[in-house]
Amino acid sequence: MMDTPLLLTSFLKRAERYYPEKLIISRTAPDTIHRIPYKEYVKRTRKLASALTKLGMKPGTKVGSFAWNHHRHLEAYFAVPCAGAVLHMINIRLSPEHIIYVINHAEDEILLVDGDLFPLFEKAIPYLKTVKHIVVMQDDKTVPESSFPNVHSYEQLIEEAEEFEFPENLDENSPAGICYTSATTGMPKGVVYTHRGLVLHSLILGLADSMGICEKDVIMPVVPMFHVNAWGMPFAAVNYGTTQVLPGPHFTPSLLLDLIEQEKVTLTAGVPTIWLGVLQEQEKNPRDLSSLRGIVSGGSASPKGLIQAFEDKYNVPFIVGYGMTETSPIVSLSHYTSAMEDWTREQKLDIRATQGLTVPLLDTEVVNDEGVVPWDGKTMGELRIRGPWIAHEYYKDERTKEAFRDGWLYTGDIAVVTPEGYIKITDRTKDLIKSGGEWISSVDLENALMTHEAVLEAAVIAIPHEKWQERPLACVVLKEGKQATKEELLDYLRGQFAKWWIPDDVVFLKEIPKTSVGKFLKAKLREELKDYKVQA
Amino acid sequence: MMDTPLLLTSFLKRAERYYPEKLIISRTAPDTIHRIPYKEYVKRTRKLASALTKLGMKPGTKVGSFAWNHHRHLEAYFAVPCAGAVLHMINIRLSPEHIIYVINHAEDEILLVDGDLFPLFEKAIPYLKTVKHIVVMQDDKTVPESSFPNVHSYEQLIEEAEEFEFPENLDENSPAGICYTSATTGMPKGVVYTHRGLVLHSLILGLADSMGICEKDVIMPVVPMFHVNAWGMPFAAVNYGTTQVLPGPHFTPSLLLDLIEQEKVTLTAGVPTIWLGVLQEQEKNPRDLSSLRGIVSGGSASPKGLIQAFEDKYNVPFIVGYGMTETSPIVSLSHYTSAMEDWTREQKLDIRATQGLTVPLLDTEVVNDEGVVPWDGKTMGELRIRGPWIAHEYYKDERTKEAFRDGWLYTGDIAVVTPEGYIKITDRTKDLIKSGGEWISSVDLENALMTHEAVLEAAVIAIPHEKWQERPLACVVLKEGKQATKEELLDYLRGQFAKWWIPDDVVFLKEIPKTSVGKFLKAKLREELKDYKVQA
Repeated sequence: MMDTPLLLTSFLKRAERYYPEKLIISRTAPDTIHRIPYKEYVKRTRKLASALTKLGMKPGTKVGSFAWNHHRHLEAYFAVPCAGAVLHMINIRLSPEHIIYVINHAEDEILLVDGDLFPLFEKAIPYLKTVKHIVVMQDDKTVPESSFPNVHSYEQLIEEAEEFEFPENLDENSPAGICYTSATTGMPKGVVYTHRGLVLHSLILGLADSMGICEKDVIMPVVPMFHVNAWGMPFAAVNYGTTQVLPGPHFTPSLLLDLIEQEKVTLTAGVPTIWLGVLQEQEKNPRDLSSLRGIVSGGSASPKGLIQAFEDKYNVPFIVGYGMTETSPIVSLSHYTSAMEDWTREQKLDIRATQGLTVPLLDTEVVNDEGVVPWDGKTMGELRIRGPWIAHEYYKDERTKEAFRDGWLYTGDIAVVTPEGYIKITDRTKDLIKSGGEWISSVDLENALMTHEAVLEAAVIAIPHEKWQERPLACVVLKEGKQATKEELLDYLRGQFAKWWIPDDVVFLKEIPKTSVGKFLKAKLREELKDYKVQA
Repeated sequence: MMDTPLLLTSFLKRAERYYPEKLIISRTAPDTIHRIPYKEYVKRTRKLASALTKLGMKPGTKVGSFAWNHHRHLEAYFAVPCAGAVLHMINIRLSPEHIIYVINHAEDEILLVDGDLFPLFEKAIPYLKTVKHIVVMQDDKTVPESSFPNVHSYEQLIEEAEEFEFPENLDENSPAGICYTSATTGMPKGVVYTHRGLVLHSLILGLADSMGICEKDVIMPVVPMFHVNAWGMPFAAVNYGTTQVLPGPHFTPSLLLDLIEQEKVTLTAGVPTIWLGVLQEQEKNPRDLSSLRGIVSGGSASPKGLIQAFEDKYNVPFIVGYGMTETSPIVSLSHYTSAMEDWTREQKLDIRATQGLTVPLLDTEVVNDEGVVPWDGKTMGELRIRGPWIAHEYYKDERTKEAFRDGWLYTGDIAVVTPEGYIKITDRTKDLIKSGGEWISSVDLENALMTHEAVLEAAVIAIPHEKWQERPLACVVLKEGKQATKEELLDYLRGQFAKWWIPDDVVFLKEIPKTSVGKFLKAKLREELKDYKVQA
């Protein structure tokens, strides 16, 4: 066979050639929506590559982006790697200290920063060691005042640039992108994506049994483009000539619902917190969701009530997925197999709420001290993964050896495997509650609590206990206008779990602290509640 | 990213792990249908690998198969390459001389031969130079009488074998299979497939915009497993846990229709000749085709009448594809894009009848002396292709340099490109009719003739002409019980083509000579009709 490298460049050329009139619908400000045909998009992408080359971008150069989901970010998604350079997608929700760290650690030389994020960003500038140019992305050609000498207008650069001819002979193992993932302690850890990994991952997203992204789709990645390649959807969409809706800055549940209705979105993806908000808004002000063929939810567990509401009330398949920054990210999706066709609704919901079946080309195993766990839906172990789009290291980081061992990525997630082979995450290694030598899954308890009609959010954490070492404590946020007592909630759980799993107490909070990507920040809860005494 | 090789082995393990109960439905004799769960299939495949290893199979060893589409052939499809050896799928319809040539040229050491094909095969045995063992595939454990010393029973070998542990560290560029393609002159030419090429090709077959093969499908590859990997469908199906229906020896249109109805086949694929026969049978004895979501047709042009009958009368999407032995084979498929949704039926049919839109990761171009042709649906040139599952040579064959030049495979097919980028084959380079310096497409004329209600098959060939160098001659087979005169047929064409395209004459034949894979053998027609004089 021909020695043709797997390159993102082939996606860009395919969109240019076969789908010139298909649209990228990009919201860059509350009242500004651009409708850009792929033909124009690829032209601008070629110009961006030329402009960045003029600013010193060479193969291997790190170019950082600090931006929302919009067409300019998508231009950078291809212009940088297709020219052989590396796009560092900076998580805008990191702390200033971490933002400075990741830019210096990645050695970014050029930064692409959204105009509306520039004020937030500017404080970091004096501490950046390798950055030579900052390009400001906004609709007009103005640039903000800054003490930094080389600040350019993105649109001005595009206007002046020639069209770049992307090389076809890059090594498929060349780095294409970097994302950093927050660590529980210490600085964020970098994961480098390659052309080969991203191309294979994009093929997986096009499989009928996976997301099935295709030309007829109108996809809206709500997951940020600074968060694990927006789950790879923008790359795949360019390859398949799929219409993309990019919701831009400061989106609300109401805006997302409007976009779904107006643009006839067929597939969207994001974290459960987003869908909880969207559901609340939809209940208040229903929109037409009939164009949607699926919502993909991942990043943390999706409460069964959430799945059920979208599926049964609004007739939208709600598919749970699993992945992490280290896995590009798609590892598994909770599709049904044909054997489940005549299962009961309850059985099907149980499957939907798992993290799903592993996609082709990946290997997953759940292991504990006794080896690989049986597929009994009960025995817990740590999930480990290997395959062609799984990282083999953290970028220039000694913590590599903690997670990458014997050819596997150890995820730090505790899981069981159902008899059908579906992965079900029951906890993070560090959130697991170890009571009297047995394991209690905080996630199972949380999911159960969140099906209670009065509960908006619930996090269950371990509190120290003299006799049992650790015991579960439930932290609950009630829905606006709803009431529930501690005893009501514990009674609700009693029907569903063994006696020794039932939390010792319930604390009611106004909100659960969350990470920059919307996951429960249990470390913070544990810290805040470390001296908590159970109320008799 | 991890350095995980792309290997067929991952498909086998996926089926074993996630789809143990899904079925391979295998017809090995007129009244024998096996229903084999994947669990059992993988077990037998592991045993076959052990048995062949005992007979001397090592990494790189060539193992020939001479067999119909059935589960034993499918076992060989994985047992041989996953052990690092190479499966040579011998076309059983080659002439004895060619069969002997390809086995000696590939240097097959072990042969797997169907019991019912053994008598046909036996005459070749004395001329085979490298074969050390012959394994006879049939339901019982008997072996036929033979002068060859090492003839084994497949089932006996399986019974006695241990389960093989397939290695996970093969080079993804290792050869996995070989097929030979008939040449117009000279001996067949070998094409070597690699693990990497077949894995990528299988991912493409799973794309929603391609065949979309998935777990819920019941696929029936009618294209023989000795013909370009049965278009790659068996490989893909194992990866996705798809139910497979393998129709076995001597299948008829009636049998195929029975299998579709009984097994609720969702997707099937084969050459147009097959579908013409199936259509005739369906018109006589209609079966329930409601399970079918698609028929894929390729290998030669599909007449528009055939497409229309399946789509409009039986509500089965009829998708034309393009490929060849050198291309693994899928290059393009005639799916509609969303822009075509409100096209007229006639416009849509015109698209369906093209060879389609190029699939991801491949590059296709149509070139003539002036360079790449415009997308005008008119300007003809030769189709050339490159990509990761396109061959870069013929195996140990000097004819490599004729077809493989400047990093492209030159297909020898003359094509135009529609304004939407769909490839439309108008001829083989050598079948093109060159009349007065202009090109006339024999395929366009044939397709038009085959839409006439009295015409079963039509081939148009060039006959020498004093003034115009060449002129078209139509060779027509009429449907049973139907009549049409030369003038009626030429009048029928006159409405559709420029005057100088109209054939000078029509000859009525009982049948069109065909190649071993069902394509019109125009070289033979030209030879037979070389002294033909136009009837005034």
